[in-house]
Amino acid sequence: MSDCSLGHVVIIGVGLIGGSLARALKAHDAVSQITGVARSQETLDLALQLGVIDNAESDPVQAMNEADMVVLASPVSTMAPILEAITDYIPAHCVVTDAGSVKGSVATAARQALGDKVDCFVPGHPIAGTENAGVAASFAELFVDHRVILTPLAENSETDIQLVQAMWEVCGARVVRMSVEDHDAMLGAASHLPHLLAYSLVDFLSQQDRHEEIFANTAGGFRDFTRIAGSSPVMWRDICLANRGELIPLLKSMEQQLAGYRELLEKSDGEQLEQAFRRAKTARDKLPEVTKVANDE
Amino acid sequence: MSDCSLGHVVIIGVGLIGGSLARALKAHDAVSQITGVARSQETLDLALQLGVIDNAESDPVQAMNEADMVVLASPVSTMAPILEAITDYIPAHCVVTDAGSVKGSVATAARQALGDKVDCFVPGHPIAGTENAGVAASFAELFVDHRVILTPLAENSETDIQLVQAMWEVCGARVVRMSVEDHDAMLGAASHLPHLLAYSLVDFLSQQDRHEEIFANTAGGFRDFTRIAGSSPVMWRDICLANRGELIPLLKSMEQQLAGYRELLEKSDGEQLEQAFRRAKTARDKLPEVTKVANDE
Repeated sequence: MSDCSLGHVVIIGVGLIGGSLARALKAHDAVSQITGVARSQETLDLALQLGVIDNAESDPVQAMNEADMVVLASPVSTMAPILEAITDYIPAHCVVTDAGSVKGSVATAARQALGDKVDCFVPGHPIAGTENAGVAASFAELFVDHRVILTPLAENSETDIQLVQAMWEVCGARVVRMSVEDHDAMLGAASHLPHLLAYSLVDFLSQQDRHEEIFANTAGGFRDFTRIAGSSPVMWRDICLANRGELIPLLKSMEQQLAGYRELLEKSDGEQLEQAFRRAKTARDKLPEVTKVANDE
Repeated sequence: MSDCSLGHVVIIGVGLIGGSLARALKAHDAVSQITGVARSQETLDLALQLGVIDNAESDPVQAMNEADMVVLASPVSTMAPILEAITDYIPAHCVVTDAGSVKGSVATAARQALGDKVDCFVPGHPIAGTENAGVAASFAELFVDHRVILTPLAENSETDIQLVQAMWEVCGARVVRMSVEDHDAMLGAASHLPHLLAYSLVDFLSQQDRHEEIFANTAGGFRDFTRIAGSSPVMWRDICLANRGELIPLLKSMEQQLAGYRELLEKSDGEQLEQAFRRAKTARDKLPEVTKVANDE
């Protein structure tokens, strides 16, 4: 990919993901121009000032004019209204994709909003990010060696899928494909559930009478364990609601898992407890080999 | 502290904690000699070879001869039998302390084993460590700017308490005092419960049919969240059993916390969910200020 072959790219939502994508595409000379769309004028001004985008637009419809590729990088709850707003204005040749952390709700929204134009929409999800939000935190290398999952629809053309794949590969990502259902099941377990656990522990501790003393006695292990609890509450509210079909049974299972550990403690069953910890350690120790590349999130 | 004022220090259990303590005391010239006690000859040979200890001993009783300070840095489950073995051989002027992660069980064991000599035993807990175990992973700076909690017994003399405090301060630690009960309640919430949650998540995921795919889709957030699940299963089995009185109700509360989140998802109550995440983020964002120093664990 080179020679501005992606043409005019419109990024709706110029935050950490949208901003980093824009930076990476410009750094690799893969676009003719980038238009950033955001509701906040402050974000747009900052993105222009940082050189992340070439043009700023507050109205997604206005930004559709002459777009070759549209990337929705806004919170998952905003994707339905955005797709509804732009559906009549997407140029004929234009490919639309997204960076949402849940794919089922986005695919459903796309079908409803785009109707028989849904073939232009290739759902995607870069497994990258940090707990810091906003265009100021964006950087061109965010996606290097990170996994991007595309969950193509039956209506998508192979050409369109490959164009989206090429866009992420320009940014250094490793692109894989899976079904919408598999994505939401895998990411529910691998990402959404851990976020819920981290939030729930810190939320629980913060409501204890002696929470200040508890937090004063935490160490590096606690800080690592709870880093993801510093993520955006609005973004994760939306992700959890959008993937609640997967998360409700996962939470139920975790409640049973904790109850099982509690019963082992009640019985002072050290043997079973050690076996459980050993299973976990074995799986954890294998992790760097399994994921191979250094993903951040 | 200088001029070898701690005299002859005996460290029982030459692992990450015991080895790092030995290195720090030698680096600051605070001891006349260090005798390391371990059951494994391999550990003793390595500790001697690395220059961590001056003398090696497999029998704690033999090591008591001419000891000025004894530090139990072995797993909490080994402390009762060790104290029982050495009780008749502790020199009259000698101070004994420990580095166990649970203090109630150790204090009880000390009372039973030492009887009317329990005044020489000052329970302690350095809030430091990494997920790596063993003397090979030890380093002199492990305790720098880390908290060490002493939980003195009513029988302890202020002189003995201050000697143990001075030993840890030589290593760069910040020493605080609290009751045995407060220690186990605070650390149960701040350290033991997070370890149980990390183990339980990885254990749960590792037993799913598609666990390899799940782990392949994890990212940096997951790795940080689960780092503590790489800790020693035997050590954490012992800690959890020793502090089960605190952990059983904490686990029960976490089951209820997760059930509460699940009910919010079942009701699609985004407002309450966002509030919960926001409480957690607020507490997490304050963390570096609360703990002040960079603790590792």
